[in-house]
Amino acid sequence: MISIGREFASKDISVTGRDLHEFAAGLYPICRSITGDGIRETLRQIKERIPLDIVEVPTGTKVFDWTVPKEWNIRDAYIADPNGNRIVDFQHSNLHVVNYSAPLCATLPLNELKEHLHTIPEHPDWIPYRTSYYKENWGFCLSHRQMQSLAEGDYKVCIESSLIDGHLSYGECYLAGRSDHEVLISVHACHPSLANDNLSGLTVATALAEFLVGRDLRYSYRFLFLPGTIGAITWLARNREKTERVRHGLVLTCIGDGGGFHYKKSRRGNAEIDRAAAHVMRHCGEPSETLDFSPYGYDERQYCSPGFNLPVGCLMRSVWGTFSEYHTSADNLDFIRPEQLARSTQLCASILDVLEGNRSYVNQNPCCEPQLGKRNLYRSTGGESIDIEINARLWVLNFSDGEHDLLDIAERSGLPFMVIQDAAQLLLESGLLAEALTTR
Amino acid sequence: MISIGREFASKDISVTGRDLHEFAAGLYPICRSITGDGIRETLRQIKERIPLDIVEVPTGTKVFDWTVPKEWNIRDAYIADPNGNRIVDFQHSNLHVVNYSAPLCATLPLNELKEHLHTIPEHPDWIPYRTSYYKENWGFCLSHRQMQSLAEGDYKVCIESSLIDGHLSYGECYLAGRSDHEVLISVHACHPSLANDNLSGLTVATALAEFLVGRDLRYSYRFLFLPGTIGAITWLARNREKTERVRHGLVLTCIGDGGGFHYKKSRRGNAEIDRAAAHVMRHCGEPSETLDFSPYGYDERQYCSPGFNLPVGCLMRSVWGTFSEYHTSADNLDFIRPEQLARSTQLCASILDVLEGNRSYVNQNPCCEPQLGKRNLYRSTGGESIDIEINARLWVLNFSDGEHDLLDIAERSGLPFMVIQDAAQLLLESGLLAEALTTR
Amino acid sequence: MISIGREFASKDISVTGRDLHEFAAGLYPICRSITGDGIRETLRQIKERIPLDIVEVPTGTKVFDWTVPKEWNIRDAYIADPNGNRIVDFQHSNLHVVNYSAPLCATLPLNELKEHLHTIPEHPDWIPYRTSYYKENWGFCLSHRQMQSLAEGDYKVCIESSLIDGHLSYGECYLAGRSDHEVLISVHACHPSLANDNLSGLTVATALAEFLVGRDLRYSYRFLFLPGTIGAITWLARNREKTERVRHGLVLTCIGDGGGFHYKKSRRGNAEIDRAAAHVMRHCGEPSETLDFSPYGYDERQYCSPGFNLPVGCLMRSVWGTFSEYHTSADNLDFIRPEQLARSTQLCASILDVLEGNRSYVNQNPCCEPQLGKRNLYRSTGGESIDIEINARLWVLNFSDGEHDLLDIAERSGLPFMVIQDAAQLLLESGLLAEALTTR
Repeated sequence: MISIGREFASKDISVTGRDLHEFAAGLYPICRSITGDGIRETLRQIKERIPLDIVEVPTGTKVFDWTVPKEWNIRDAYIADPNGNRIVDFQHSNLHVVNYSAPLCATLPLNELKEHLHTIPEHPDWIPYRTSYYKENWGFCLSHRQMQSLAEGDYKVCIESSLIDGHLSYGECYLAGRSDHEVLISVHACHPSLANDNLSGLTVATALAEFLVGRDLRYSYRFLFLPGTIGAITWLARNREKTERVRHGLVLTCIGDGGGFHYKKSRRGNAEIDRAAAHVMRHCGEPSETLDFSPYGYDERQYCSPGFNLPVGCLMRSVWGTFSEYHTSADNLDFIRPEQLARSTQLCASILDVLEGNRSYVNQNPCCEPQLGKRNLYRSTGGESIDIEINARLWVLNFSDGEHDLLDIAERSGLPFMVIQDAAQLLLESGLLAEALTTR
Repeated sequence: MISIGREFASKDISVTGRDLHEFAAGLYPICRSITGDGIRETLRQIKERIPLDIVEVPTGTKVFDWTVPKEWNIRDAYIADPNGNRIVDFQHSNLHVVNYSAPLCATLPLNELKEHLHTIPEHPDWIPYRTSYYKENWGFCLSHRQMQSLAEGDYKVCIESSLIDGHLSYGECYLAGRSDHEVLISVHACHPSLANDNLSGLTVATALAEFLVGRDLRYSYRFLFLPGTIGAITWLARNREKTERVRHGLVLTCIGDGGGFHYKKSRRGNAEIDRAAAHVMRHCGEPSETLDFSPYGYDERQYCSPGFNLPVGCLMRSVWGTFSEYHTSADNLDFIRPEQLARSTQLCASILDVLEGNRSYVNQNPCCEPQLGKRNLYRSTGGESIDIEINARLWVLNFSDGEHDLLDIAERSGLPFMVIQDAAQLLLESGLLAEALTTR
Repeated sequence: MISIGREFASKDISVTGRDLHEFAAGLYPICRSITGDGIRETLRQIKERIPLDIVEVPTGTKVFDWTVPKEWNIRDAYIADPNGNRIVDFQHSNLHVVNYSAPLCATLPLNELKEHLHTIPEHPDWIPYRTSYYKENWGFCLSHRQMQSLAEGDYKVCIESSLIDGHLSYGECYLAGRSDHEVLISVHACHPSLANDNLSGLTVATALAEFLVGRDLRYSYRFLFLPGTIGAITWLARNREKTERVRHGLVLTCIGDGGGFHYKKSRRGNAEIDRAAAHVMRHCGEPSETLDFSPYGYDERQYCSPGFNLPVGCLMRSVWGTFSEYHTSADNLDFIRPEQLARSTQLCASILDVLEGNRSYVNQNPCCEPQLGKRNLYRSTGGESIDIEINARLWVLNFSDGEHDLLDIAERSGLPFMVIQDAAQLLLESGLLAEALTTR
């Protein structure tokens, strides 16, 4: 019986955490965007760890209501003050340039320049992250403190970018299981130097895939590393027929910070992934909360659009948009933590365990309890209380009527899925259970 | 797109409130009852404001299990003390006489008189309101303090009333809309000098009808001004076939005092009117509470009797029977307030807005989100948070699958119906939505 | 109209309580087990009070997955210290011997003896209750304090028991009602000198049966006095076809102590017995709590096994296993109280009242309220509030649509079932209701 989560738990969490954080640190400096060499290099580094198809989709390709945009690349960008000093410099932080800024070289007075500057007055030392993917524009992001210190005068502005026909790139790692029913794990890979959003998701998804490679799995697994929104839309437009195989899915984002877990349910609200995630979180030992579906968020927006309505939820630690570091330079490598990355991976593994192990069984002795004692499955001295393992056997026997799966029984009993699954396995081996013909 | 509530909100609330209160003040002195000239005069004054059919139903008419009673009228009534002084005088307050008291002229010793006197010991200065419609009787109501001060002796009692064959009168204002599906607004008009119960309902219903006259409306509207219980029963008995057109309904009572709103749900419990009223109250800025249906109350008792089971709820501010002024002389013109009357009317108008505007739409781009940006329906700079209007568009798009109406979406999103409706309108105009063939 | 609970309530509770406690006191010293003369004598004493079939099932009989065990009887048992003093003596407490201990006469050094001794370190003065029904073994139970005081040396151990082919005995009291649909009341009768578990159940069940004998009852009643687990399994195996008649059932256990009531729902969770028990507890004036079904417990384990899934719940005061006296010598005659035994019996009687009286009616005047006043079923003076009886009539009339039974109406109205039932009876007599053709 596979138990990914338990196996993962047996590993040294500090070693796992360090590896995850180092992987994130290596990806951190790259200037990613929804197209271009930044995301290509990112996918290349992921491919060093897991089998990955890198797909290139040409500019102009129609994907549902959208069109794959021009490819954007950037070599350098800066603002020079009237004395010629580079005071805002892309080389120091790729957040300084509004992502997808068109190429430009110009000299402007301060008041005109300011129309293209973005700051965060509430956090005067942080640089915001801004984009302009679908409207050609340019801009710089800098700390509010710096902007306030700018003296009047003419500033030279230079953006050495290119915005031309090219490709949109995404990565796809498909691990075939015994069934072609799929579990979809989707992360966006388009954010530049931001750590929680979403190097955390990239590293956790990569670690999960690495962990699953070569295993005998019930489900097939598809890991998607995509530019946000347009990437998911592109994948869905090109793989419409595959979506019917998706039985469960997770979008991973903001999953490396110090907060407790948050799981946003799929649009369906009671899909097996929703129940599995809620169950595993309840028993994970960290604070956690389940949130109702809403149509704003990450790529679950696309997977859960009404034309697909896939059972895909979104797993986070702190919820995007609710922490002040979100979309700023403060979402850096210190904001994500090795141990949290490892624990997030482990939680995901435990959710996969539930999906892999959830089945319905039928009690072969449905009339009265079978005599567990004669099979050495009960305590021998009566009058004492029973332990959790025996209790789990009673729960499995009583509710294995073909209408309750193991996850139902785990939820109803309040016992962890693994304990219920172990009990079912033992009872199955004892001939007291048989697998139900059709798992609902 | 009609928006009665918004239009109403644009009016000066103090002007509206003053008008409503003045209308109530003009009706206050009239001695109404379930039949007779008091209710006739009341209907006449309402008819000065809105088109009203005044219907006269003869005494003795069978209406289901009931019979239209004799008509009651009264000119004068008093108790004179042993010295001949009129110490309890109908001319001072029509509450002094038990409503429907039979005519009488007699002299009685105090102890016999007392069997016909009604007081409220807990509120010794207030006069109670009592009736004896269906059992011929007589009586006087007075303050407890006055009753205790009565000296022994013979008292002259005189009631110049008449109780003879005549008619039961009610008023009906029908405003035809585009559909013959109806919204029913029902208020009782039989209480004498009591303000919250129910001049408040009369004035609010009249103002609503006045506001709707001449508009292009989705639904037809039927306003009923009836004597309580027997009036609703009479209307239902005479209009049985029309009840099938009633899609939504409200009984209005006790709706002018300083308390927060209370909505008692229809017997169905989840009718559209129940959801609409709860939704509008939730966003109205005043305290509010939804109550389960119970079979005691006002004329929802009849509309929600099991043979009709109409989707009719009851909207109140303070709940009848729970405030001490209820059915006493303290329910006077000071107890109802101009601003509260205006706000109650506005709340009703907002409920009607939901009924008028609630529809189901179908997203014409159900696979992935449509690109709102290219239609100028999205923010232009990425990385910032979205505003409530954009959020509403995402909600409407995601849940416009033909199975959720706009009210569902408003409830699920937590956004006000108007914001959701505006979003739907914009998306409809953009061709992103189409109206669903059948609204559930 | 039968009202067992009301009739029971009219009795002097202190007299009832004393009688119940005395009956328990008479049964207390008997050394019961799952077979043997102890349970036979217990059944004989019950049979002095109610008609009881005592059924004997031979050792070796196959009952589903189980086999009726050998019969166990015991005359004497003791441990003698090195000086020959009987320091642990079955004659002082039958808990001293592990129930079902095999016969033995031997001399052992203290360390070997200790492997067969059971104590409760947390309650050093109490003797635990232990059994070894299905694994041949022997042992003694004693206070932890005494065990700690034992000096080194050789101890004589003597158990004069017999474990040979014989019978399993159980008692069955069947009271035929107008229908062969049955109410099952099941209690275990196998515990030796333990009072709450389960002389309380035995006495309450006996009192209930005694109270029902000779009455005209809607349902037939079957009271089972069984050895725990094996007894219920044996009965079910021998009476499989009768189980289809069981419409409602209760297992009674731990029902005499000072705690509030606990009702554990049947596996179905919303059976009529579940609703009836919850309703009656809510109005009983004692603290009470409803618990979800779980597969560990008393004989509801068997009745609610998935092959039967009978609507059988379990009524307790303190929940077994949660009070420290459970399965110890402290669960003695002081731990159960006369008044609590009587009140438990009364609560059961009130639950039976609901089952006996619950029906669906159809309002014969479904359009509008019928005029209660002309039938003297309403107050005569209008304007005052109505009392609970009139309110109950309105509830019954409004919801008597053939889809709500009286228990539904009681639950929805918040009024006690008896008040609702009285109202229904009055309305039935007035011709305003008719019995629904099929009660759901």
